[in-house]
Amino acid sequence: MKLLRYGAPGAEKPALLDQDGVIRDLSGVISDVAGAALSDETLTKLRALDTASLPAVADDPRIGPCVGQVGKFICIGLNYADHAAEAGMELPAEPVVFFKATSAICGPNDDVEIPRTSVKTDWEVELGVVIGKHAKYVTKEEALDHVAGYCVVNDLSERDFQLHRAGQWVKGKSADTFGPIGPWLVTRDEVADPQNLSMYLDVNGHRYQDGSTKTMHFDVATVISHLSQFMSLHPGDVITTGTPPGVGMGQKPETYLKAGDKMELGIEGLGVQTQNVIAG
Amino acid sequence: MKLLRYGAPGAEKPALLDQDGVIRDLSGVISDVAGAALSDETLTKLRALDTASLPAVADDPRIGPCVGQVGKFICIGLNYADHAAEAGMELPAEPVVFFKATSAICGPNDDVEIPRTSVKTDWEVELGVVIGKHAKYVTKEEALDHVAGYCVVNDLSERDFQLHRAGQWVKGKSADTFGPIGPWLVTRDEVADPQNLSMYLDVNGHRYQDGSTKTMHFDVATVISHLSQFMSLHPGDVITTGTPPGVGMGQKPETYLKAGDKMELGIEGLGVQTQNVIAG
Repeated sequence: MKLLRYGAPGAEKPALLDQDGVIRDLSGVISDVAGAALSDETLTKLRALDTASLPAVADDPRIGPCVGQVGKFICIGLNYADHAAEAGMELPAEPVVFFKATSAICGPNDDVEIPRTSVKTDWEVELGVVIGKHAKYVTKEEALDHVAGYCVVNDLSERDFQLHRAGQWVKGKSADTFGPIGPWLVTRDEVADPQNLSMYLDVNGHRYQDGSTKTMHFDVATVISHLSQFMSLHPGDVITTGTPPGVGMGQKPETYLKAGDKMELGIEGLGVQTQNVIAG
Repeated sequence: MKLLRYGAPGAEKPALLDQDGVIRDLSGVISDVAGAALSDETLTKLRALDTASLPAVADDPRIGPCVGQVGKFICIGLNYADHAAEAGMELPAEPVVFFKATSAICGPNDDVEIPRTSVKTDWEVELGVVIGKHAKYVTKEEALDHVAGYCVVNDLSERDFQLHRAGQWVKGKSADTFGPIGPWLVTRDEVADPQNLSMYLDVNGHRYQDGSTKTMHFDVATVISHLSQFMSLHPGDVITTGTPPGVGMGQKPETYLKAGDKMELGIEGLGVQTQNVIAG
């Protein structure tokens, strides 16, 4: 099942994408693709709906972030061996965890805004994991039962803010529009193996990232179990699991986004995002 | 005006504390002490209420976190010169920013739970700043207009998780109950000078922290202006501004919390928190 949210920013309505690619409104069934609506119980109910009876959404609406009311936007750093190498950093002994601001979240095709003093705004295609059930001290074996589904994330990063502005990475990860998520939340029953999904990111038609979740260092189950030793994970939390090689910082010479650029990124089975880059 | 939230966790009701120390229910006026209710417009309306006409809350209810639906829980590290010294770290050239998980937030007198594998759970009394108005690229001069009010925060920290578990501090800052906030949100009109408030923290009756916001390195206005260059601040975001000397890590020998301990902490004019420490 592919769940989504459509409409104006901050006023999105819940929907699903049917087999024919038609957006069907779910406002009469759930209030949002968020929180308790991400439970196995609710997802089972949604699966049982006669989708043809749901209102088809006309025109071509803006697609919002595929999850609403995100409580935590958790990121795993340096989680692909080749990306750690290109960043000049060692592969970590356990998952490197940081947060993005939830206020950075935007729709998959919204404009991406370069912060005013930025000179190094960079891209990162990543597999996003949406939590569906409260997880605290869970084992690796139990971990995937706590997943509602998966989505595409672009973990935009300002490298100078991230690495050279006193301390923690959060400064380079949290600007408005630095977290497009979606277009769909694809429920976990439709993702046979989250560790075998091809993924790519193009800028202006040039393929910079071309990888697979196969080369992820700590897999999704390990990441969830690990995080749950340090904090509770709640329905609607989004974990973004790191990026394969090919970011701008790793190019020779380094290459960063500028106003007028166009990104396209996708993950096998999870859909495609396209973003125009604008000045902040 | 002292705003608060009372009732069972997750089902708190909004209230104010009147001049006589009586809790008066605000459920008929605002839905929560959160988001848009923190605007100058709403706060002005609340100030105009005849408090004696509001329902008095009987008995002695649990006090919840003083702000609901917190979007971001932003922390400033090493923001008191003496604390940086006791932590063995240099005073930074600009504010060090990290996030705590919003799921760590709890009421001011709730039990604090030591994570299962923790050996170094530590305390930090801090001045909390609650945002009332959207702030993006604001100057230092404009910054305080974006504040709804102030509160006490205990920025609980697991030092081993924070400093020795691969990378970023977030792992040691985000456990459940690691963020008691309150008891009150004291609106900014009642805080004549946020940079001249005495603060303390006792464990089992021994005074470990005894400081003042006077010795804060980057003041509240600087912190807000700085943050707003890197991310939007929204109503209901909470910024906790760093701790004065006297944390457990700074004791000789180092001293950490254990089940059965009792903390008491307070800031001049902002009220007092008390927490029992329990095993996780």
